[in-house]
Amino acid sequence: MNISDEKKLQKIKEHIRKIEYLKFTNNNLLYWDKVTNMPKKGIGFRSEVMSFLAGELHKLIEDKEFVKLVAYFDSKDPQELDIQTISMIRKIKGNYEYINKIPSKEYRDYIYLIAEAEQVWSKSKRNDDFESVVPYLEKIVEHFKNFTEYWGYEEEPYDALFSFYGAGVNTKMVDEMFQELKGYIVKLLEDISTSKVRINDEIFSGYFNKDAQSKMTIDILNRIGFDFDAGRVDEGEHPTILPNSNKDVRIITSYNEEDFRPAFTTALHGGGQALYEQGISSDLYGTLLAEPSSVVFLEAIARFYENIFGRSKEFWDFYYPIMQGYFPSFKTISKKNFYKALNKVDYSLIRMDADELTYNLHIIIRYEIEKDLINNKLSVKDIPDVWNEKYKEYLGIEPPNHGLGALQDVHWFSGYFGYFPNYILGNLYAAQIYSMIKREIPDYGELVSSGNWDKINDWFKEKIFIHGSIYYPEELIYLVTDENLKVDYFIDYLDEKYRYIYEM
Amino acid sequence: MNISDEKKLQKIKEHIRKIEYLKFTNNNLLYWDKVTNMPKKGIGFRSEVMSFLAGELHKLIEDKEFVKLVAYFDSKDPQELDIQTISMIRKIKGNYEYINKIPSKEYRDYIYLIAEAEQVWSKSKRNDDFESVVPYLEKIVEHFKNFTEYWGYEEEPYDALFSFYGAGVNTKMVDEMFQELKGYIVKLLEDISTSKVRINDEIFSGYFNKDAQSKMTIDILNRIGFDFDAGRVDEGEHPTILPNSNKDVRIITSYNEEDFRPAFTTALHGGGQALYEQGISSDLYGTLLAEPSSVVFLEAIARFYENIFGRSKEFWDFYYPIMQGYFPSFKTISKKNFYKALNKVDYSLIRMDADELTYNLHIIIRYEIEKDLINNKLSVKDIPDVWNEKYKEYLGIEPPNHGLGALQDVHWFSGYFGYFPNYILGNLYAAQIYSMIKREIPDYGELVSSGNWDKINDWFKEKIFIHGSIYYPEELIYLVTDENLKVDYFIDYLDEKYRYIYEM
Repeated sequence: MNISDEKKLQKIKEHIRKIEYLKFTNNNLLYWDKVTNMPKKGIGFRSEVMSFLAGELHKLIEDKEFVKLVAYFDSKDPQELDIQTISMIRKIKGNYEYINKIPSKEYRDYIYLIAEAEQVWSKSKRNDDFESVVPYLEKIVEHFKNFTEYWGYEEEPYDALFSFYGAGVNTKMVDEMFQELKGYIVKLLEDISTSKVRINDEIFSGYFNKDAQSKMTIDILNRIGFDFDAGRVDEGEHPTILPNSNKDVRIITSYNEEDFRPAFTTALHGGGQALYEQGISSDLYGTLLAEPSSVVFLEAIARFYENIFGRSKEFWDFYYPIMQGYFPSFKTISKKNFYKALNKVDYSLIRMDADELTYNLHIIIRYEIEKDLINNKLSVKDIPDVWNEKYKEYLGIEPPNHGLGALQDVHWFSGYFGYFPNYILGNLYAAQIYSMIKREIPDYGELVSSGNWDKINDWFKEKIFIHGSIYYPEELIYLVTDENLKVDYFIDYLDEKYRYIYEM
Repeated sequence: MNISDEKKLQKIKEHIRKIEYLKFTNNNLLYWDKVTNMPKKGIGFRSEVMSFLAGELHKLIEDKEFVKLVAYFDSKDPQELDIQTISMIRKIKGNYEYINKIPSKEYRDYIYLIAEAEQVWSKSKRNDDFESVVPYLEKIVEHFKNFTEYWGYEEEPYDALFSFYGAGVNTKMVDEMFQELKGYIVKLLEDISTSKVRINDEIFSGYFNKDAQSKMTIDILNRIGFDFDAGRVDEGEHPTILPNSNKDVRIITSYNEEDFRPAFTTALHGGGQALYEQGISSDLYGTLLAEPSSVVFLEAIARFYENIFGRSKEFWDFYYPIMQGYFPSFKTISKKNFYKALNKVDYSLIRMDADELTYNLHIIIRYEIEKDLINNKLSVKDIPDVWNEKYKEYLGIEPPNHGLGALQDVHWFSGYFGYFPNYILGNLYAAQIYSMIKREIPDYGELVSSGNWDKINDWFKEKIFIHGSIYYPEELIYLVTDENLKVDYFIDYLDEKYRYIYEM
């Protein structure tokens, strides 16, 4: 690269650092303070500050000189650029081109619509009233149909949503994989229903002291390698993680004193995500690449730590006695019964309460519905009928009301069309990574059951975390596992796990 | 005001709101997070963010259109403007003209010098080494001499420092008042030394549980009228208050488990300041006037709540039994002995440990020294000798080393020349206000001793807090008490208090 280009690149990076300062501070730190510490009357001024800073961020992104510099490198022969620069340029473009392609008036209308729709949804859910949300959801669907046209797609409109979320797949691939997965799970559920194994999960009801839950959370985070000098954990209403740089990653967890499971799963779900954020290379600041490779990969890591690692026999071989120290009431329950209870398969109407296996069916139902909405094959008013039919067909149960049915999730009303598939794709990515870890770390199982977890974190760091978003998910999975994304690993994983648990 | 002017004014206010957003967020919220919650490795990125936002704030302040609009109103006949606009314009000018008058190269040099000088001071204090700080302090003094020339003054250079801090006084006035105060206190100390009353303050040594201190702090704050829906209190190394708007005022307090007094005094000192911040009218946002009328008035309110109110007999008539609930070890100590112990006069070398009476001598010594430095009557290398002589003369004691002498405070090394007098001036303002409260609320004493403190907070709110910095301190004290600042009220207050305590 010649000196003039070096200077141009330097300018881009300096500008991006400013974008990063505002982004991390406004989206994460000020938001974190708002949900953890802010006194309630502070909301008015805080909202003004956050909206002002969002405007400043927008100005930086639209800065003419910056846009020109990006275009300059974008027009260059990639052969002349290093991988980090190539990734940076495509990230800058990818990050903002979606929003920029929407006419600004329509985008503003859409933002207002969403804000209102969330309110209406919340009320309708309480009142079991689908009618009221129909006009809002119809408008949202219309917007998304427009968006897919603005954004462009290869084969069908829904493809544009996979691109938007950087999921590294298209509708055709997902249809095939989900079809196979659905068929497999429905069949496995039939087998499980004939198993003689009966699992009692009433052991999770009772009183679980918040203090003990908090101590366990910190203990788990320490053990998986979370660096408390570069992060913290606090209680808040909605579990999430909020990084303010890789050296200040904040986990928000919530405790339920009537059930110890949420604290445990959040510690590993949020903990996995936090390890990802802490593991991103510091060298990537100033390139916009100092974040995970799209939501689907962040979800994959979360699901690896929560399910594959955290709900495994090996994990509890090591951790059960420690956990019993925090919750002595489990001392009368055998490790085996505990492990089985934690993985009990059940037919539930609520996605959030579903077990690791049936969870996928909940997602597939939503995916099929939203795809048909976007692809013009279904009208909003028919959602509840289709929803209920699918629940009956795949899970054998039918919602008695919309709150337990089509109104249970806020996603569509918040504009998260195309988001649901990420939850399953995260499982697929996670299982494929898992199969590779077991090959590369042959004593993986023993390491887990002996509490030596550093090697696992190190492996993830070196193979995945450190790269931030230099690679797209489809590139990263290939780099890590030498293959494109496949559904097989997840099916194999489920098969081995549930056949063991249900002794089939 | 005509329509064109109305529009111009509107523009100024919109611009100021942005200045306020950045100022409150960067100087207070991000700083608060840094000292309470930030994981330690987060410091690097946080420093970058804070320095970036400080730069953005500077840009807003120097914005050409804004400066032009301010100049436009500044050139207008004040008769045409309302008081809020007049105050706003002079506040904008006053806030930044001091820094702007310093050549920017010199200001940068000075900032670097200060940062280094603080480090050197800290080391020198530990090593009892005054020599090492001399070259640094000499340069700082040189800078301040220059500053006073840039800023201008009426009679002598030190006057410029009183203007800088908006203290509402000049050197001549302060010399006269401090002279009278010093004479009075030295004489009173002689009388006290002949009093037969012997006060034992060993009752404050012991173990005072942090939890109980925290509970007492919250209780006191609630009782004085601090609104916990518009603020909070947290533990941190250095007590301070950090407002992020009048609806989100954060107190930082520190606890000493070997002495319950710091928690108590911080609750009232910081609590008083916090009441001030919470009491400022919301209408003043967008005018830069939504802050206290200079540091000296904030100090006055703090000292009123901490000393005049909090160390009074009436306060403890009401609060002693409640405090004993938090600290049962005091149950064997009579209220009278406790009150006397809390107000014991002692000859100490350390300003921070001084009682309410001798504290003023500590300040006068610093004031006399720094005034002579700035007015070219003393060289830096001679400070320790002069320091020790003055301590001997006024307090009858002499520091055995520089840590207990001229190196004890960081102020000069942080560039806080001209700040010390504010501590006494705060006392004078507070005592003058106190005399007015007693006239306007004739049952003040009974209200305090019966725990009915709302009326006091309301009085302060209506007379002082609500006005933010519409008025300069000298205007505000006149508005509240119908007189200019006088030393007499403070002397009367001290006289009555200490003659009662020492039974003279």
